[in-house]
Amino acid sequence: MASRDLTPERIVRLEGDAVVLLDQRRLPDEELELWCVSAEDVADAIRTLAIRGAPAIGVAAAYGLALAARRGEDLDAAYEVLAAARPTAVNLRWALDELRDDPTPERARALHEAEVERCRAMGAHAVELVAEDSRLLTHCNTGALATGGYGSALGAVRAAWEAGRVEHVWVDETRPLLQGARLTAWELEALGIPFSVIVDGAAASLMAAGQVDAVFTGADRIAANGDVANKVGTYALALGASAHDIPFYVVAPTSTLDRGTARGSDIPIEQRDAREVTSRFPSHNPAFDVTPADLVASIVTEAGVHRAPYASSLPTPVRA
Amino acid sequence: MASRDLTPERIVRLEGDAVVLLDQRRLPDEELELWCVSAEDVADAIRTLAIRGAPAIGVAAAYGLALAARRGEDLDAAYEVLAAARPTAVNLRWALDELRDDPTPERARALHEAEVERCRAMGAHAVELVAEDSRLLTHCNTGALATGGYGSALGAVRAAWEAGRVEHVWVDETRPLLQGARLTAWELEALGIPFSVIVDGAAASLMAAGQVDAVFTGADRIAANGDVANKVGTYALALGASAHDIPFYVVAPTSTLDRGTARGSDIPIEQRDAREVTSRFPSHNPAFDVTPADLVASIVTEAGVHRAPYASSLPTPVRA
Repeated sequence: MASRDLTPERIVRLEGDAVVLLDQRRLPDEELELWCVSAEDVADAIRTLAIRGAPAIGVAAAYGLALAARRGEDLDAAYEVLAAARPTAVNLRWALDELRDDPTPERARALHEAEVERCRAMGAHAVELVAEDSRLLTHCNTGALATGGYGSALGAVRAAWEAGRVEHVWVDETRPLLQGARLTAWELEALGIPFSVIVDGAAASLMAAGQVDAVFTGADRIAANGDVANKVGTYALALGASAHDIPFYVVAPTSTLDRGTARGSDIPIEQRDAREVTSRFPSHNPAFDVTPADLVASIVTEAGVHRAPYASSLPTPVRA
Repeated sequence: MASRDLTPERIVRLEGDAVVLLDQRRLPDEELELWCVSAEDVADAIRTLAIRGAPAIGVAAAYGLALAARRGEDLDAAYEVLAAARPTAVNLRWALDELRDDPTPERARALHEAEVERCRAMGAHAVELVAEDSRLLTHCNTGALATGGYGSALGAVRAAWEAGRVEHVWVDETRPLLQGARLTAWELEALGIPFSVIVDGAAASLMAAGQVDAVFTGADRIAANGDVANKVGTYALALGASAHDIPFYVVAPTSTLDRGTARGSDIPIEQRDAREVTSRFPSHNPAFDVTPADLVASIVTEAGVHRAPYASSLPTPVRA
């Protein structure tokens, strides 16, 4: 099975009157398809993380709007329910806006293909940042599963591996939902890339021990000044990397750029059900955190490698 | 039930020909006693974390040596098997040395009582570090369960709460074994102290949001220069605290001080079974990390509050 059959169509597709997606909640134990037969079903799949990752939920939402159009649903209502499914990722709304005037299966598929192409372009740009025999550290899942194909930060890791530059990948398990230990590990195993899963709290000591050469993470939203909202735990990694002069790279498509948001503190942070942490005791469960731009060595988009000052170096998003 | 009946005797005691301890692996779901009938049994309980926390395993080992003496076991062999049960905590060997010349139940009980008294003294010293209405963050479990009674860092939190100074406690869940989410939460609930469990990766963003006034952690071993070995994830907290000018305090009895170890990099770090992280994929599982002394605002022992330079300010351990 080539790359565990992680084709873009396997991750999410429109088939007849359904959006069909690989249920990421069940991985790595089971590879089950989830069939969504309404925009509400797709929104529910996004909300419950059957599909997650900023680019992938944008693609799923696009298919969801095309499905709503085909079924004759109220498109404004479908747009709203899909847009509200996750508050932090900006490209969810971007993808819906892209589809709004032409909510056809063809348009949704074109958006999906373009997302995967952007990932390949990001990977090609990121390779130049990776030295020979690098030990790379990554957080959450930013692979094919998160983007609809190939991956953003994990796509960069993959491209660097294909260029013969990766010795080892450290995978943060990424509590509470273990996207690293479940999904990134599953993808890396399929790709044959050597890796070890670590608890999130172990990353800083690996950095202190000189066992990390670079950190690659994705982004759910990037503010105009370069502040990066990403999976909770990312900011601690950036602080550790900074303390040990390890470059911290963010890899994300331009659809993640939000020029309408001046800085990270303006980005709404989704608070998720406390029971994702522990069901027995009170808990607090922010899904994302914000890494200030001054801790980010480079932001890689499909347009290239961008460096501070990000306010001027970040490209205009493709939607503009 | 007073403080969930967390008396020192409930946590660990010598009863007849057995060392009896509350099995911390089963908490908070079940409150079961584990009966150890040989030094090897006690070593196994320490190794498998049925009892954990540097002071508590010292106490358990002391009872284990007294048990071995009562049973007529080879004392040298008993000493070695107990000393080898965990490599990082220095007071395990200290407690065994304290018992060696007089391995009686009375001596072991006196050592246990002295450990709890030291905790109360640390708590009294630490109160002065806590301002009114403080939001405190802690890691792992350093409460009565970890020390044999009252607690070190969590004892400081408790003392500050009793002095009316604590508004809220943030509890790192502490992967991979969840001592925070299981044990610290269980103790705080019993004490009626308001708290929320968070994933370890969320601590830095709470600090950035101004929601943390001070961090309190324990220590498994403190080098002569003040470097602190503690549960993995501690170092990342110290980096976050430093980035946000939040004081980072270490609370540990003098039995944790190791003048024979010059600096943190000389402390052996226990590598535990990778399956504690994930049994499906390769993983790497260091149990501890080292926080450099320059990130530690104060070290609190039963002798008082000590500040840098620690090489001269740390007291002579009680064993010297």
